[in-house]
Amino acid sequence: MFDYDVLVIGSGPGGQKAAIAAAKLGRRVAIVDKREMIGGVSINTGTIPSKTLREAVLYLTGMSQRELYGSSYRVKDDITVGDLSARTRHVISREIDVIRNQLSRNHVTLLTGLASFVDPHTVNVRAGGEDTEDRRIQAERIIIATGTRPARPDTVDFDGRTVVDSDQILALEKLPRSMVVVGAGVIGIEYASMFAALGTKVTVVERRDRMLDFCDLEIVEALKYQLRDLAVTFRFRESVVSVERHNGGTLTLLESGKKLPADTVMYSAGRQGLTDILNLPAAGLSADNRGRIKVGSDFRTEVDHIYAVGDVIGFPALAATSMEQGRLAAYAACGEDVNAMRAELMPIGIYTIPEISYVGSTEDELTEQAIPFEVGIARYRELARGAILGDSYGMLKLLVSPDDRRLLGVHVFGTGATELVHIGQTVMGCGGTIDYLVDSVFNYPTLAESYKVAALDAMNKMRAVARFSG
Amino acid sequence: MFDYDVLVIGSGPGGQKAAIAAAKLGRRVAIVDKREMIGGVSINTGTIPSKTLREAVLYLTGMSQRELYGSSYRVKDDITVGDLSARTRHVISREIDVIRNQLSRNHVTLLTGLASFVDPHTVNVRAGGEDTEDRRIQAERIIIATGTRPARPDTVDFDGRTVVDSDQILALEKLPRSMVVVGAGVIGIEYASMFAALGTKVTVVERRDRMLDFCDLEIVEALKYQLRDLAVTFRFRESVVSVERHNGGTLTLLESGKKLPADTVMYSAGRQGLTDILNLPAAGLSADNRGRIKVGSDFRTEVDHIYAVGDVIGFPALAATSMEQGRLAAYAACGEDVNAMRAELMPIGIYTIPEISYVGSTEDELTEQAIPFEVGIARYRELARGAILGDSYGMLKLLVSPDDRRLLGVHVFGTGATELVHIGQTVMGCGGTIDYLVDSVFNYPTLAESYKVAALDAMNKMRAVARFSG
Repeated sequence: MFDYDVLVIGSGPGGQKAAIAAAKLGRRVAIVDKREMIGGVSINTGTIPSKTLREAVLYLTGMSQRELYGSSYRVKDDITVGDLSARTRHVISREIDVIRNQLSRNHVTLLTGLASFVDPHTVNVRAGGEDTEDRRIQAERIIIATGTRPARPDTVDFDGRTVVDSDQILALEKLPRSMVVVGAGVIGIEYASMFAALGTKVTVVERRDRMLDFCDLEIVEALKYQLRDLAVTFRFRESVVSVERHNGGTLTLLESGKKLPADTVMYSAGRQGLTDILNLPAAGLSADNRGRIKVGSDFRTEVDHIYAVGDVIGFPALAATSMEQGRLAAYAACGEDVNAMRAELMPIGIYTIPEISYVGSTEDELTEQAIPFEVGIARYRELARGAILGDSYGMLKLLVSPDDRRLLGVHVFGTGATELVHIGQTVMGCGGTIDYLVDSVFNYPTLAESYKVAALDAMNKMRAVARFSG
Repeated sequence: MFDYDVLVIGSGPGGQKAAIAAAKLGRRVAIVDKREMIGGVSINTGTIPSKTLREAVLYLTGMSQRELYGSSYRVKDDITVGDLSARTRHVISREIDVIRNQLSRNHVTLLTGLASFVDPHTVNVRAGGEDTEDRRIQAERIIIATGTRPARPDTVDFDGRTVVDSDQILALEKLPRSMVVVGAGVIGIEYASMFAALGTKVTVVERRDRMLDFCDLEIVEALKYQLRDLAVTFRFRESVVSVERHNGGTLTLLESGKKLPADTVMYSAGRQGLTDILNLPAAGLSADNRGRIKVGSDFRTEVDHIYAVGDVIGFPALAATSMEQGRLAAYAACGEDVNAMRAELMPIGIYTIPEISYVGSTEDELTEQAIPFEVGIARYRELARGAILGDSYGMLKLLVSPDDRRLLGVHVFGTGATELVHIGQTVMGCGGTIDYLVDSVFNYPTLAESYKVAALDAMNKMRAVARFSG
């Protein structure tokens, strides 16, 4: 007899949704996490704090309004870490309450401590939080959602104050005048853009020759342009040899021989799956050299009754995606049918300043697959709402199939991108075509109008092609 | 031989779209308006300036951030009319450029002057602007899009500075400490909420016993609650006898005997169709006592070749709707088929603080028609994004058919309502059900997530009903 039908290891977005979905299916469910990590990295040091910080940056710097008012209208001239973090603490504690509430409302047992496998069905929960003794839990099905921690090479002299990883950045004591960001992944670029907006001189060092290579190239180039305008320097195809701490600052040494002095270094070159303390071999499992667990399409690992979801399985490692994975894994573990969202409808949201979001294919992907497409573009500056907001760089790009006028991809850059993309996602998900968008009436003035403008643009281009190919 | 195939009278949103649609269909098109009114009321004194003012109010007062920072973080302590209007002038001139550009790019002739009918196919354009002589224009089809002006009863002592109509409000010399708003229509309530946010003590006087009665009742009540919280006083079922000007202020006398002193009075009780100078009888047409022209479903008037669109035909008198009417009228006038947007998909957007938007039916309408529905609600405060924004009052309400799980109505209140409503509109327009929303992945954190939360809420309620009526 098992203690639980489903045991979930990790209470981040993926783990939570897995536990709640299994509980709603009537299963006896427990979820394990360290007491101080309820909600996972997402709530405590990741998504939620960074998005709250971003909102504070946008507001306090008057960033979104500068085009209209000039910088004299910024809310505070001397923005402190205190200004930025007041809001963050409030939101974090609120979100932790929400999660505890949801779990208890759904009768999910919350076990505090560190989990490790004893055998494929048994997990040891090492004492922690309110519990004083180790407990052994047996469960019929187990879902691993332990997430990741920042990779921390020995050559980098982390101290949590001037040389930090991305989970420590929010604990900075003061705003740096200069900063080196190592790694141009989603997290690195999100923070680079926030600090740049705050007036920090940021240098981004990235080993590869481009960044965010899963995104639309035109939009990534627009982002780079905007960041350079905020005094960001990019160093692509550069590797870090070491990061040293010196009195009053840091020095980052590159393989090319460059030396980059800065008040602060944020090292965000990759994250490591949190699997080392799980004792995976006891469950008959293993992780790759980045600590990640391999899963099949239903998130099942090599061991039949064990599933894994979220950042610990790799790309895209976004909260929204992890939640869906958690839900799907729970349904699979409980032997229930579920509508999986089609992979091509999974949105990607990047909370840079300006933000990026997309759903579906990129131009490069379609070209590689020799799928013809037409492009429809709307620029925010053509919209009354864009003028009112002072967003002159924002844009919506629709990739349209000339055969059936369906949307193949929706790419948004600028104010509200992560919200706006869902109109296009809905057209794709509900089987609509750009004819729907052309005929739609949108509130005036809104950014949503960009869909009509972009759809008309694509339609006109397709008509021009049709005229010649008769 | 006619001078033009289509003559459009009025260059507001309805007239513009009519002219451009006809031009795109290959017709010879002219549009007439007074030189200083290119773009109509919408651009010069209505929609665009008021929405720009609203954005400035939100930013400068820190309104949307107060819950998180306290009012000490407002951008300016002493907000002046200058602060507010700097932005407005910039946006207006930009939008006028956009329109002039669009018209010329589409080869629409712009005639400046005042139009009046000579006979059903002939219009006199009285000299104005660059033109020095009257011109007679003959056109095969004529589209009237002259809009409205504020109604100005004799009992109100308008001076354009302390006693103003809604087209004059933006010319106020200083921010009033107190204000009486007569008329709780869309325009009255939009301005009442903006001035309340700026700290003006506002009293709203409305003849009827409720306001915005086409909107969801629960949302209108939430709006009233929020406005009262900003020190707005409502006086429903009260009529104004007269508005007097006195040294240093105004006095509004009500039929009930109440006397309301205030720095400023904005009289916004209704608007009058701009038809009096059109000489409609010469065209065989007439207007009702509010100056409005009656049209059929294709916007055709009683005279076969004359159409009317926009505010001059009455409700809802919103820019977005007028644009669609203009497009449809042009197609009808040119004898072309066009996909008309289904009436139930026409969005309504009200830019109060907080804003309101909806599409489809209200609860009251469905109940009257004996159409059963289930309600799914998401409150912004349950969403991570709501917590980050500090919007604790916002909500999304879905009205769902229990028979086929289609959306019957979508009602949004709070931050981004006018944008968000379009996700629900797209589900309705593309034939989706709430199953789509339940299975969708939304970027995290976004307000768009409210669709998933509300859809799940409705789904759970319908399951509970099904359990008992099974």
